[in-house]
Amino acid sequence: MPGRTLLFIPGPTNVPDEFLRAMDRAMEDHRGSHFPAFVHGILHDLKSVFGTTAGRAFVFAASGSAMWDAALVNTLDVGDRVLAVRKGQFSTLFADAAVRLGYRVDTIDVEWGEATPPDAVEAALRADTAHGIKAVLMVHNETATGVTSDVAAIRRAIDAAGHPSLLFVDGVSSIASLRFELDAWGVDAAITGSQKGFMLPPGLGLLCLSPKALARVPHATSPRAFFDLRALSASNDTGYFPYTPPLPLLHGLRASLDRILADGMPAIIARHHRHAEAVRAAVAAWGLPLVAARPEIVSDTVTAVRVPEGISSATVMDIAARRYNVALGSGLARLSGKVFRIGHLGAIDDWMIVGGLGAVEMALTDAGVALTLGSGVAAAADILRRTAPPLPSPIA
Amino acid sequence: MPGRTLLFIPGPTNVPDEFLRAMDRAMEDHRGSHFPAFVHGILHDLKSVFGTTAGRAFVFAASGSAMWDAALVNTLDVGDRVLAVRKGQFSTLFADAAVRLGYRVDTIDVEWGEATPPDAVEAALRADTAHGIKAVLMVHNETATGVTSDVAAIRRAIDAAGHPSLLFVDGVSSIASLRFELDAWGVDAAITGSQKGFMLPPGLGLLCLSPKALARVPHATSPRAFFDLRALSASNDTGYFPYTPPLPLLHGLRASLDRILADGMPAIIARHHRHAEAVRAAVAAWGLPLVAARPEIVSDTVTAVRVPEGISSATVMDIAARRYNVALGSGLARLSGKVFRIGHLGAIDDWMIVGGLGAVEMALTDAGVALTLGSGVAAAADILRRTAPPLPSPIA
Amino acid sequence: MPGRTLLFIPGPTNVPDEFLRAMDRAMEDHRGSHFPAFVHGILHDLKSVFGTTAGRAFVFAASGSAMWDAALVNTLDVGDRVLAVRKGQFSTLFADAAVRLGYRVDTIDVEWGEATPPDAVEAALRADTAHGIKAVLMVHNETATGVTSDVAAIRRAIDAAGHPSLLFVDGVSSIASLRFELDAWGVDAAITGSQKGFMLPPGLGLLCLSPKALARVPHATSPRAFFDLRALSASNDTGYFPYTPPLPLLHGLRASLDRILADGMPAIIARHHRHAEAVRAAVAAWGLPLVAARPEIVSDTVTAVRVPEGISSATVMDIAARRYNVALGSGLARLSGKVFRIGHLGAIDDWMIVGGLGAVEMALTDAGVALTLGSGVAAAADILRRTAPPLPSPIA
Amino acid sequence: MPGRTLLFIPGPTNVPDEFLRAMDRAMEDHRGSHFPAFVHGILHDLKSVFGTTAGRAFVFAASGSAMWDAALVNTLDVGDRVLAVRKGQFSTLFADAAVRLGYRVDTIDVEWGEATPPDAVEAALRADTAHGIKAVLMVHNETATGVTSDVAAIRRAIDAAGHPSLLFVDGVSSIASLRFELDAWGVDAAITGSQKGFMLPPGLGLLCLSPKALARVPHATSPRAFFDLRALSASNDTGYFPYTPPLPLLHGLRASLDRILADGMPAIIARHHRHAEAVRAAVAAWGLPLVAARPEIVSDTVTAVRVPEGISSATVMDIAARRYNVALGSGLARLSGKVFRIGHLGAIDDWMIVGGLGAVEMALTDAGVALTLGSGVAAAADILRRTAPPLPSPIA
Repeated sequence: MPGRTLLFIPGPTNVPDEFLRAMDRAMEDHRGSHFPAFVHGILHDLKSVFGTTAGRAFVFAASGSAMWDAALVNTLDVGDRVLAVRKGQFSTLFADAAVRLGYRVDTIDVEWGEATPPDAVEAALRADTAHGIKAVLMVHNETATGVTSDVAAIRRAIDAAGHPSLLFVDGVSSIASLRFELDAWGVDAAITGSQKGFMLPPGLGLLCLSPKALARVPHATSPRAFFDLRALSASNDTGYFPYTPPLPLLHGLRASLDRILADGMPAIIARHHRHAEAVRAAVAAWGLPLVAARPEIVSDTVTAVRVPEGISSATVMDIAARRYNVALGSGLARLSGKVFRIGHLGAIDDWMIVGGLGAVEMALTDAGVALTLGSGVAAAADILRRTAPPLPSPIA
Repeated sequence: MPGRTLLFIPGPTNVPDEFLRAMDRAMEDHRGSHFPAFVHGILHDLKSVFGTTAGRAFVFAASGSAMWDAALVNTLDVGDRVLAVRKGQFSTLFADAAVRLGYRVDTIDVEWGEATPPDAVEAALRADTAHGIKAVLMVHNETATGVTSDVAAIRRAIDAAGHPSLLFVDGVSSIASLRFELDAWGVDAAITGSQKGFMLPPGLGLLCLSPKALARVPHATSPRAFFDLRALSASNDTGYFPYTPPLPLLHGLRASLDRILADGMPAIIARHHRHAEAVRAAVAAWGLPLVAARPEIVSDTVTAVRVPEGISSATVMDIAARRYNVALGSGLARLSGKVFRIGHLGAIDDWMIVGGLGAVEMALTDAGVALTLGSGVAAAADILRRTAPPLPSPIA
Repeated sequence: MPGRTLLFIPGPTNVPDEFLRAMDRAMEDHRGSHFPAFVHGILHDLKSVFGTTAGRAFVFAASGSAMWDAALVNTLDVGDRVLAVRKGQFSTLFADAAVRLGYRVDTIDVEWGEATPPDAVEAALRADTAHGIKAVLMVHNETATGVTSDVAAIRRAIDAAGHPSLLFVDGVSSIASLRFELDAWGVDAAITGSQKGFMLPPGLGLLCLSPKALARVPHATSPRAFFDLRALSASNDTGYFPYTPPLPLLHGLRASLDRILADGMPAIIARHHRHAEAVRAAVAAWGLPLVAARPEIVSDTVTAVRVPEGISSATVMDIAARRYNVALGSGLARLSGKVFRIGHLGAIDDWMIVGGLGAVEMALTDAGVALTLGSGVAAAADILRRTAPPLPSPIA
Repeated sequence: MPGRTLLFIPGPTNVPDEFLRAMDRAMEDHRGSHFPAFVHGILHDLKSVFGTTAGRAFVFAASGSAMWDAALVNTLDVGDRVLAVRKGQFSTLFADAAVRLGYRVDTIDVEWGEATPPDAVEAALRADTAHGIKAVLMVHNETATGVTSDVAAIRRAIDAAGHPSLLFVDGVSSIASLRFELDAWGVDAAITGSQKGFMLPPGLGLLCLSPKALARVPHATSPRAFFDLRALSASNDTGYFPYTPPLPLLHGLRASLDRILADGMPAIIARHHRHAEAVRAAVAAWGLPLVAARPEIVSDTVTAVRVPEGISSATVMDIAARRYNVALGSGLARLSGKVFRIGHLGAIDDWMIVGGLGAVEMALTDAGVALTLGSGVAAAADILRRTAPPLPSPIA
């Protein structure tokens, strides 16, 4: 292909060139005297993206999903019980990680396409009169279904049940893109990675703990070494890491935080909403249903689209990738072959949204889906231009 | 802007990442023993892009337009007479360069939007019975108007007039994108730069001379030092340059030639035609006229579009750039304010064409041009998907 | 500083520009159809650097030390007993990780500066008649002391004791630099990271298991999720990862493996020995003692040097870093202030060795160490030029 | 070679990584509204490096030597007479360029190794009572011989002769490294390129004219097109270029100017002197003579060294390059085989100077030159450490 692949997937997202440049550098002495100011600055600024002043942020050389481990093993005792809500592939894997780490996992299962149900969580916790459940595990934005849940409502449900449970939230595909408020929402562990809203390559796990969760760290009996926050926080206190940290990604994170702070989360949230509205308008124009069960819970970072009976979403994706150089996300697990997903988060402009949707239209048509070419793009363009921010002078 | 600017201008064009990487390197000793093989390889492979086996290619640290100087001063005597056809801004500047270099310049002027007229050239040369005209100067693809002329027809016109004139062709916006055949078309000097079809940053002037033109070099009396091909060719013969050459761009040129040779010019030419057809279909759907006077002469690398009376093309461009992150070319000189230009050459994929056209549609609408949003994109998408190359298995 | 820092530390090492370029790239779809061939190629070629055909290699988004966790939790049962030899900071931390992961750890402690003692290992295993010890943990090249142990001798000791124990070897600062033979030496788990002999940034943990260790993976009862090789190997079998892998580093690893395979491990091993000899000659010329207790066990990747009484090694390091732009390794834990370490592994040339040693000489002098300026460099240069490979023609 | 080549040549010099990163970027619209502020900033800041407030600076996509053309054709009339001093290869080529551009060139020839002689210049101008000589051409720092001339003395000589001649100075290997004062020294045209003191890749010609020279531009009758400052200055006035400028190098120049302004020319000049002193001390310790005839005229950017009879400098250079990865400059023209040159300008640190000198020592020894290994390095290290700037706290 002569040009450049559009990553219309929910991660890794398109990395801005300036972040690539920030990472493209010779190694440095990670024990040098210049390093602590650099580390402290990152860890400080990271907190604001998690929406916390009271909590503490950590950076690991790891995947985002490794932060499931980090959150659990640093706060729970061996054999502890947790409550996990399963509503898609990633919430299922989060629950599964807890099982594999040796915890007893109660599950609430909802239809894939539904959000985390506050009432069911409340009921489960009310039933746990012995307060055996130590943590509720939820995914904020289920990347497999394109559904965003109401985290604050889950905290309210826990509190309404009079239950002391911690609240652990996977925000891999939401944090730094959607609104996230660790302090205000009563989240105890927030989990993400570098390769989505932070617009960086994968390779960093990012974790933020509330004071309540931090207070558990010295006492939790779960075995841990690499993930042990006792060692990491002691080292971070001095501005260093207990191991050689992934230097290029730390510099990328510095660049990412600089941009996020400069843009401000409100503008970033608004941008994601605007792009999501455009994508959803295109999907509606094509006459294709979303996986998300209800409009109130659609995600502003990823849109999961069902293809008509008799058409394989794998065919659509293959055509989009190989013929039009646009990468789409696949349907996962039980949605395999029936769904494709559009990731519209991170470093993406209006023209890229329009170009990506145009390629999807062409690929759908090529794959035999009956639709009017241009219909989706027109619907998206209409939203984009009506909601485009006013231009500062010289041209209003 | 969160994402990436689309360069929908006729140069500099989008540079493939792999070319950027080839250029992002430490300096080297340009007098080292490894250097001659590198230089000879570039100069050899460059010839094939010019369509020559008999001629010789040269690379300068210079702009593409500097090759006007290089062609003229190495082949002409002080005070020589040339014939220049002016049909747009760049052909006008080419003629002007000849004047400023001290040559006597006869001009044929045609409407901006027309091609180089073989009959007028033939007539002018027939009238020059004393054979005072030493060279005909033409622009192959007039970037200001989006018009491609028939170079072979001009050579036939010269020959039909029984005139010994050399033929100098500016191929800045055609070579490496459109068909170009120095040998077959009887071109004596072909002129281009790095920043268009070669998909590189600006900074290299590329020149190719026929044996007939080369034979003039030792005898031409025009003063020259930097541009003197006697020094350059002697140095190139040994694999070096008479000055420190622009090393990153030479490595970029190596990468570019590797890709051009791997793709093959026929495939590259076909790709440019396909994208141009899509762009022109969009413009037709918008109901906007081209600058090009006739369909037979439209350019496959740049499309110049007239905006309606009462609308300034500068407004359209400003909106496209600042609101949608798409850069368009302006109308030049007498076309200023009346025309915008779309560059659709180089490293560009179908989804980028669609996204760029979508942005232009939005910008036109914002600027007050009445059109149906989605109409241009639909027309372009229809052409693109019908002409997309068949996919190799696994999906046909 | 106007120039470039010399990383004369034992990691991260200097990254070759071509590896930086291989990593400086846009993200890609890690679920794309092109990905399996890429992953399988890396995992295959990695085995040869570990010296195995029978084993299996794994790549994690993690630090090198995280592979301590990965090796232990995938092969041991909860509460299993291991035998760890402590002889420096890193072997101490390896043992500590086993403790923190919940295993019972028997330790053999030797002087810092000594190697792993085969006789003591054999004795400990002979005493374990119940075969309660499941694994012996050792560090091949103790980075804190600059001492290389004989891995094969430890395997022979285990076998001589008639003991079925597994042998786990931390090769963080040896693998890809020094000779390492997983198959031939009877190693069951070999552990390293990307930032030393592989000449890459930190961020990849690399693990290789013998068939015997692999056979434990399905049965080991230790809790694990991120580190679970069942999930990773199933995913790797299909050419993918269970999470979004660190794409830039994978491309860097591809470039690194390409170079390692092209150079060949014998040449790489010889190069490290030659540079180490030069460094040791300089240290001897300065009259400073090594931490390594005996010449037979000196490391060819890192040299730990004692400073005279009354001089702080921190002062020497600070001067070298801030005045001469050369980063040295510090003395760790009980060696703090008394020792500095020179890392001479990875992408380093003779002139860099000489320049680094020259800077150390200057810094030592500045810090008050009495030595003859030039003495160390002269001794090193003498070795380097006498052992330099013969030049191919044109100059012999 | 595993590591990195040391460019110990007088250009191209080692490019700092941050400059490479500044140049490693996607193309942009060079007609965009953001561009004028960028261009004006560069052209303004460039003046301070030339030492002028009254003059005007220009940037060309060209080699440094192309600025010979630019200076001459924009200020002289056809057939004008100039006086050129020849004292090495580059001053000879400067004079030759003037000849090839059609001017009448009077020459003063001095021994290679001598400086531009003020008395001879004064005498020649006194003899030109008709004031036919329009410009004196000199090279400030003759790169072939490692000799720096006194520019102010030449201006005084011109003035002492009561002659109105312009003074044109090639500062290719001096400007941005050595003291240069266009205004204070009465220079009318200063000529340089990007690849030496500016620490950038080659590809930019940099020119600065005095008001007196600028006043000639509209009237000079020499033919010129690409080099025509009338077009360039008109375009620059609006913040643009008459052609597509070499965008990566402009961004590199921005980074270079930022660093030069931050460091300050006095510190840069002092650094070059300190490194030059170290190199000369090493050469003296080896017992090898300089090409420079007298200590007062030695260059602080390049040192030209004679090898003993019976030894070819080409052999020394070949060994240094292929065995030790250090590139040296060759002896040029009449100095071929007899001389090698060390470039010690640009982005180079003390440890690189020491490492480079160590490699030269080894190469000289390998080539059969009798010297004491370590002697040169010791002499250089002694100077470097005694002249190293004091460290700010924590270590004094």
